[in-house]
Amino acid sequence: MTVFVKVMLKPGVLDPQGKAIADALHRLGYGSVSDVRAGKLFRVEVDTDDPKAAKEAGEQMAGKLLANPVIEDYEVLLEAAGAPTGAAR
Amino acid sequence: MTVFVKVMLKPGVLDPQGKAIADALHRLGYGSVSDVRAGKLFRVEVDTDDPKAAKEAGEQMAGKLLANPVIEDYEVLLEAAGAPTGAAR
Repeated sequence: MTVFVKVMLKPGVLDPQGKAIADALHRLGYGSVSDVRAGKLFRVEVDTDDPKAAKEAGEQMAGKLLANPVIEDYEVLLEAAGAPTGAAR
Repeated sequence: MTVFVKVMLKPGVLDPQGKAIADALHRLGYGSVSDVRAGKLFRVEVDTDDPKAAKEAGEQMAGKLLANPVIEDYEVLLEAAGAPTGAAR
């Protein structure tokens, strides 16, 4: 099964990357952008057919390795709920 | 409105970061992990109440700045469809 782990900085944690992106978007003419936060998205293929086991494994992996719980929030989703379509655009 | 932009490497593009994470997960005992792909997730606050305009702006920003369309696929979602819950876990 495919598990997606979304990792974002907690509210209030300084995000210099997001700030730099917001500044660049302003320079490109997107003045309506008020804030950008940059996060990470991991697609993990787990060899199991049990959605509950896959999600539980994803939660553990996120807490131990993929996210830093001190400064980051994470969310674990099974494929149907969080998959990019993968279509080339 | 809040727009989420998911960016993942296209299938077939080498992902050394994902490979390193998969190796680390194996060392942590998650032998059932067969593949990891690392991507990016951006939360962009756009000053508009028009969902269509917000999504259109998100698509443009993704194509111009947030993603490299040569090697990356992207997907643009409005908040309800792609938001991490933000709950501390």
